[in-house]
Amino acid sequence: MTLNVRGFAALSADAPLAPHNFVRRDPRDTDVVVDILYCGVCHSDIHQARNEWHQSIYPMVPGHEIIGRVKQVGAKVTGFKVGDTVGVGCMVDSCQHCESCAESLEQYCEEGATMTYNSHDRHDNMMTYGGYSEQIVVSEKFVLRVSEKLDIKSAAPLLCAGITTYSPLMHWKVGKGHKVAVVGLGGLGHMGLKFAKALGADVTLFTRSKGKEQEAYRLGADHVVLSTDEEQMAAVKSHFDFILDTVPNPHDLNPYLDTLKRDGTHILVGLIEPIEPALHSGKLVMGRKTVAGSLIGGIAETQEMLDFCAEHDISCDVEMIDMQDINGAYERMLKSDVKYRFVVDMASLKNAG
Amino acid sequence: MTLNVRGFAALSADAPLAPHNFVRRDPRDTDVVVDILYCGVCHSDIHQARNEWHQSIYPMVPGHEIIGRVKQVGAKVTGFKVGDTVGVGCMVDSCQHCESCAESLEQYCEEGATMTYNSHDRHDNMMTYGGYSEQIVVSEKFVLRVSEKLDIKSAAPLLCAGITTYSPLMHWKVGKGHKVAVVGLGGLGHMGLKFAKALGADVTLFTRSKGKEQEAYRLGADHVVLSTDEEQMAAVKSHFDFILDTVPNPHDLNPYLDTLKRDGTHILVGLIEPIEPALHSGKLVMGRKTVAGSLIGGIAETQEMLDFCAEHDISCDVEMIDMQDINGAYERMLKSDVKYRFVVDMASLKNAG
Repeated sequence: MTLNVRGFAALSADAPLAPHNFVRRDPRDTDVVVDILYCGVCHSDIHQARNEWHQSIYPMVPGHEIIGRVKQVGAKVTGFKVGDTVGVGCMVDSCQHCESCAESLEQYCEEGATMTYNSHDRHDNMMTYGGYSEQIVVSEKFVLRVSEKLDIKSAAPLLCAGITTYSPLMHWKVGKGHKVAVVGLGGLGHMGLKFAKALGADVTLFTRSKGKEQEAYRLGADHVVLSTDEEQMAAVKSHFDFILDTVPNPHDLNPYLDTLKRDGTHILVGLIEPIEPALHSGKLVMGRKTVAGSLIGGIAETQEMLDFCAEHDISCDVEMIDMQDINGAYERMLKSDVKYRFVVDMASLKNAG
Repeated sequence: MTLNVRGFAALSADAPLAPHNFVRRDPRDTDVVVDILYCGVCHSDIHQARNEWHQSIYPMVPGHEIIGRVKQVGAKVTGFKVGDTVGVGCMVDSCQHCESCAESLEQYCEEGATMTYNSHDRHDNMMTYGGYSEQIVVSEKFVLRVSEKLDIKSAAPLLCAGITTYSPLMHWKVGKGHKVAVVGLGGLGHMGLKFAKALGADVTLFTRSKGKEQEAYRLGADHVVLSTDEEQMAAVKSHFDFILDTVPNPHDLNPYLDTLKRDGTHILVGLIEPIEPALHSGKLVMGRKTVAGSLIGGIAETQEMLDFCAEHDISCDVEMIDMQDINGAYERMLKSDVKYRFVVDMASLKNAG
């Protein structure tokens, strides 16, 4: 059975996304075929569609925050049945035998995880295509259960924005008694506020723009610090145990490092570029401070995060769009003009041309 | 009693060090007066003498790796008596009431520790002057006991080069089962090899120069990797738990980050400058890796380190020089031409000018 699928694709780094028909790989007996209902729009979709990470292969169908319904299961699939509501995140496969995979940290697979799009399937070498499309074929091991308690539209971005912020908070054991600051109030940042608050931390939002206080408080912040205001920055000198930095573009980390306590940790989850302007080593040495990175999360932890969200009534704040609106949505995201994640209603694909 | 002291000082950023007489503060009743026998020569002495950290005050008497004998003790001194062999390191005082001081981490004193030289005494505001001199006056709390088992010439550099490498290895709990790499084979680097080996780790030296193998093995390395050789670097990809980076000048961290395992830590102990070329955030994010800094060590840990050295027969490899040779020694250090630390025999001061 060959799956002919409709979607939206980037055909080159400088072309707007446009309707595109393509073929999915034949489902294997451990595969689940998912009818895609909703797909969140991640900032990395823009980086990738525009080849800003210099590894893009075209045509590219972006999208890795996928919620859908199981349409078909392979003979050996045991965990899912037709009709189940499921999620698919940033990865669709991994080597399954390295140390990282053995520890359920497939995102750090030593042979490289198979990403949901712009990647080669590790069995038949076909390109992977993402969630801006009608259907996807995924190995059962990389399919997530979605609780009935979750609103499935606003759950879609949990698959990337959610796990990307949840995983480091868990890894560094953030909780009661900790002072946590979140840098940036976008798709990741607003989830960082919600998770840090739910974990019991005292939560601060760093923002460059005035007027975000009420929104920040609504989302879980206890405090808001205007990072462009020297007095406000001085008032939080040596104050935080953790900074969760969600900004996807180069920015100066040095002023934030001054706000960390001794032994504090600045965690980068949005930036995949050179750190410029340069990080000053003295900021680390003088307080035994740390700059760390964290990449999404493993499949088991993604399931844990989805269940945590169902239990604590946490979801993303989303703006629903039609597939045809994707290029305008990208432009708005580049202006930080979205509260806080666009989600594509895939029903719109039927009218997409 | 005013102490008139002979020493060697930098009178400006571009002048060679020269004989200089100066006045030490009057000893207080909690002070110990130390006749200086030996003083190690630290790379930071050069940075400071030449104002490369943009905070130098002249005249400056460098030196913070001091071994001497107690000449006099104040009325309230209880831990030392005349004739004791003692050490003085990078700090001579701190606030004694902040959280860091309470945890015996005076190097991170929230009000700023009083450094052994180029600092202001926190009680009378007089300048502090370092160990390139006949005598020093130090608060008892910042004086270290030196075991009779230690050779006192080669023990001098333990007060900075020793504790600077020992402290992070202890903080990050380096031991058996860990793979540790040391970057740079100078005063700090050669101590890093010795300590990492004594703690039971599998130890590698990263070096840019061929021909250091035998020396590295003698000092404790199990392996040597030429960091300029791409094949050798590729062979240690994702290999190390910790990298102890002792290099005092800007250098590219990115190739080293590739050699860290997932969750590995690159610890900077020598660099107090902007990290250039830029650190690539992707190197951190893709393996949940960490770049951290560490500054010397607290007084209690410095004592522990000295006792560890006595117990494990560890000392610095030193080249003895006269005080008059200091400017030539600086030039040799800048060419990495010293095995592995210069120590000034302060008896030479008597003939110095």
